[in-house]
Amino acid sequence: MKQQGILAVVSGFSGAGKGTIMKALLEKYDNYALSISATTRKPREGEVHGREYFFLTVDEFETLIANDQLIEHARYVNNYYGTPRSYVEEKMAEGKDVILEIEIQGALKVKEKFPETLLVFVVPPTAEDLKNRLVGRGTETMEVIEDRMNRAIEEAEVMDSYDYILVNETVEKAVEDLHNLIQSQHMKAENNEARIKQMKEELHAIVGK
Amino acid sequence: MKQQGILAVVSGFSGAGKGTIMKALLEKYDNYALSISATTRKPREGEVHGREYFFLTVDEFETLIANDQLIEHARYVNNYYGTPRSYVEEKMAEGKDVILEIEIQGALKVKEKFPETLLVFVVPPTAEDLKNRLVGRGTETMEVIEDRMNRAIEEAEVMDSYDYILVNETVEKAVEDLHNLIQSQHMKAENNEARIKQMKEELHAIVGK
Repeated sequence: MKQQGILAVVSGFSGAGKGTIMKALLEKYDNYALSISATTRKPREGEVHGREYFFLTVDEFETLIANDQLIEHARYVNNYYGTPRSYVEEKMAEGKDVILEIEIQGALKVKEKFPETLLVFVVPPTAEDLKNRLVGRGTETMEVIEDRMNRAIEEAEVMDSYDYILVNETVEKAVEDLHNLIQSQHMKAENNEARIKQMKEELHAIVGK
Repeated sequence: MKQQGILAVVSGFSGAGKGTIMKALLEKYDNYALSISATTRKPREGEVHGREYFFLTVDEFETLIANDQLIEHARYVNNYYGTPRSYVEEKMAEGKDVILEIEIQGALKVKEKFPETLLVFVVPPTAEDLKNRLVGRGTETMEVIEDRMNRAIEEAEVMDSYDYILVNETVEKAVEDLHNLIQSQHMKAENNEARIKQMKEELHAIVGK
């Protein structure tokens, strides 16, 4: 009675530690598949096609849209971003729990299309931690940091449309919390319809004897 | 930012192993409080007032009903059974996760009153296991076993109105699954409204500086 995988969307403030949590989760457990987004933006230094993103031309991307081969897509700053449908569906059918690490706008679209999607929003323990992490990276200008903080304010307005809030106190704890959360979705009644049906049939067969 | 406790109702087929799981869960973790039901039936050999049940007179029980001091109550075979409200509310306010081990009828009433209640239904891996466990106890007559199996058939019809299905393969795994399930409820957005509000205020304060 192999169950289909869970579809989980993980979003969160820039600097909340999503990327680190995802990396540690995938290293620790082998039941997850991380969906890779497609984009028309140019690869940055060190980015690899099929690892960070599938880097596509506008034509290629628009063909995916036309053929309904994206679960969700959006435009940011003149570039397309989207989630290819085939990878997600294949992995879920294999029983893998698929994680999409996408923006709020895309997350809400996925939830609309697939209401059983688990939406998780990652936050640092406090807003001060968020600022400290962005400053601590040492790679961002003050202008970028302010921009991120302003975006966090906007994102905070919709964070309660997510199902669950993951507080990133330590990476280890956040990984365990996220793993336990996703795994407990397998216990949902609607994910156990085959088992429930079989149980009913077995009970009838035994009592009918 | 101390959170209120979770209210979880655990039901399941007679012989599915609920009692053993509850006992092991409460021994292993100290964040749970098991609610004790009130009843007007007479105590059986070895049962202690305040441990298995609060044994009340019909008058006492009807006073609780009249004063809205029960979360749910029902009559079975001329006896009242019910869940005292004060214990549940006090423990939840203390931050304890409260577990009610009650029948389906009561469980659905609690869910109606408190929609955020987590309903968990415990099943053995197969119906054959259920029969074997009932037979294996060695304390039940064949008539009682048949009665329990017939009741399982009735209960199986409503088990999909529960939120989660807990398959009791081993007690150790069932305890961990139940613990992880209940603990992940603390991450629900609606259980983190205070945190979300505080995060918004902190972000505004930092950016406003």
